[in-house]
Amino acid sequence: MQLKQQFQNIVEQQIAELNLPNAPKQLYEPITYTMEQKGKRIRPVFTLLACSMFSDDVSSAVKTAVGMEVFHNFTLLHDDIMDNADIRRGQPTVHKKWNANTAILSGDTMLIEAYKLISSAPTNVLKPVLDTFSQTAVEVCEGQMYDMDFETQQNVSIDEYLEMIRLKTSVLIAGALKIGAIIGGADQEDTDNIYQFGVNLGIAFQLIDDYLDAYSDPKVFGKQTGGDIIENKKTYLLISAMNNANTEQKEQLNYWINKTDFDEKEKISSVKNIYNELNIKELTLQKAKEYSEKALEFLDKVKSEKEGKEVLRQIGIQLLEREY
Amino acid sequence: MQLKQQFQNIVEQQIAELNLPNAPKQLYEPITYTMEQKGKRIRPVFTLLACSMFSDDVSSAVKTAVGMEVFHNFTLLHDDIMDNADIRRGQPTVHKKWNANTAILSGDTMLIEAYKLISSAPTNVLKPVLDTFSQTAVEVCEGQMYDMDFETQQNVSIDEYLEMIRLKTSVLIAGALKIGAIIGGADQEDTDNIYQFGVNLGIAFQLIDDYLDAYSDPKVFGKQTGGDIIENKKTYLLISAMNNANTEQKEQLNYWINKTDFDEKEKISSVKNIYNELNIKELTLQKAKEYSEKALEFLDKVKSEKEGKEVLRQIGIQLLEREY
Repeated sequence: MQLKQQFQNIVEQQIAELNLPNAPKQLYEPITYTMEQKGKRIRPVFTLLACSMFSDDVSSAVKTAVGMEVFHNFTLLHDDIMDNADIRRGQPTVHKKWNANTAILSGDTMLIEAYKLISSAPTNVLKPVLDTFSQTAVEVCEGQMYDMDFETQQNVSIDEYLEMIRLKTSVLIAGALKIGAIIGGADQEDTDNIYQFGVNLGIAFQLIDDYLDAYSDPKVFGKQTGGDIIENKKTYLLISAMNNANTEQKEQLNYWINKTDFDEKEKISSVKNIYNELNIKELTLQKAKEYSEKALEFLDKVKSEKEGKEVLRQIGIQLLEREY
Repeated sequence: MQLKQQFQNIVEQQIAELNLPNAPKQLYEPITYTMEQKGKRIRPVFTLLACSMFSDDVSSAVKTAVGMEVFHNFTLLHDDIMDNADIRRGQPTVHKKWNANTAILSGDTMLIEAYKLISSAPTNVLKPVLDTFSQTAVEVCEGQMYDMDFETQQNVSIDEYLEMIRLKTSVLIAGALKIGAIIGGADQEDTDNIYQFGVNLGIAFQLIDDYLDAYSDPKVFGKQTGGDIIENKKTYLLISAMNNANTEQKEQLNYWINKTDFDEKEKISSVKNIYNELNIKELTLQKAKEYSEKALEFLDKVKSEKEGKEVLRQIGIQLLEREY
């Protein structure tokens, strides 16, 4: 995975050299603050990995790759306003540290900065890169809207949930890969296959996220488990449990969902007891396995023998083993 | 001005055919609602007029032109959240009719839709069109941030104010013109001159707006005059008055600015009395005249003998005579 680390370094360096203007301070400080928080930089690294599958020189994809990361951080910034979240990556969110207006406007500016970076793709592929990005970006907004809708929607089906996470999470991973492949010079077939690899991998990734929120070791996971249960978040686990529950289990689940005054530990363990009775853990992991296997099938079809392909394959395999 | 009307019709028709998706309803309904409110469509019409100065066929500029209008409406939508405005063009604002989260996310989607439309510029000019648009878009955000900063800033100089309105208002008009010229095939010199025409025209336009808010006939203006005075808005009028006032006049102005409980008509007439003593009306109109004359000088330099140039000249001349 040396290649992955190498690309991570390239991305970090490019982010450090973004050279945003100094004024107005209130507009640009929150952007620098957001970009300096080290994430895993998965999306830009994926862009470079995909590019490297078809070209030995990824330099023409670096700025576009960073554009994907700026876009991702823009979505987090605006999502945090909408979700009224206080903390992101252990730091106060922008709308808490500054205010909502600043967060709206700095976010808008980040979206434009993302487009500026993405527009630095080589002229001969600029149009398909832009079209892919815009389509992806709109779908991410659609996914966020469905996610907010679900909060007040009585019944959410498994299919609706999977479609929501496809839009909110997967298409950006898939788009980052596809854009890298386009810049690398991949043909249509390979571009489509790598996109499908990303979509399926992204869904598997989110299912594992749902699982980890309830079942991971807090010491390894880095935060308290059970947050989704406390918030009645309609995850794959809760929706599956509701679908498979008998009358008594459904009553118990509804009891905990509707109870406004509760002991957090008691709620978590009671809901997890029902999950365990219904094999929800195994069901979720099985579903994630299906998606990651499907992802790897699409990757196998891609006509490349380069290291980047092997690195992506390893990421796909290790996904199911991750604990945080 | 038949050409202007013709281009307005083309723009309206293209907006009617935007064909946004139906779902998620909560995301796209506010966009349709916003775009259906008939504005003057100045920016897209300017794009087409500028294009027509260099090309007999403006069809390749139509979608990009509408992208400028979508962007403009996006800024209004997000500005209305930030300013907590209830009404826009006589209708409830999106964040009042729906809610702030919907307004944030629908606005984000509009910004992406704007880029999608703008990206349909002919491939051979796609890169300069995108660069011009992104630069413009970032500057509009900077202008909005300065405008918000000014609310709490004790002293705003005339130069700071002019720079703010250049960013918030003028560059979008200038950018719309420049993009039309680029698509029409203008050379660098003409493109620069038409941009400068737009910047100066935009500033003149905003100064007239400031003037009309205090001095227009409410029956013609369509809304009550004096709104800026009531809100202590730091317009060209108030800043000039503060700069030119003697000690007594300054005291009176500060009295009205700091008074929280007041009769609106009394405040308006008292402040306007000071404006009249200081010739603020004439000062503002003179400044607007300077900018519109400068604008017309830049337009004169543009190497085109086509009708579009004459239409833009007429718009520049009539600007000073407008009453609403």
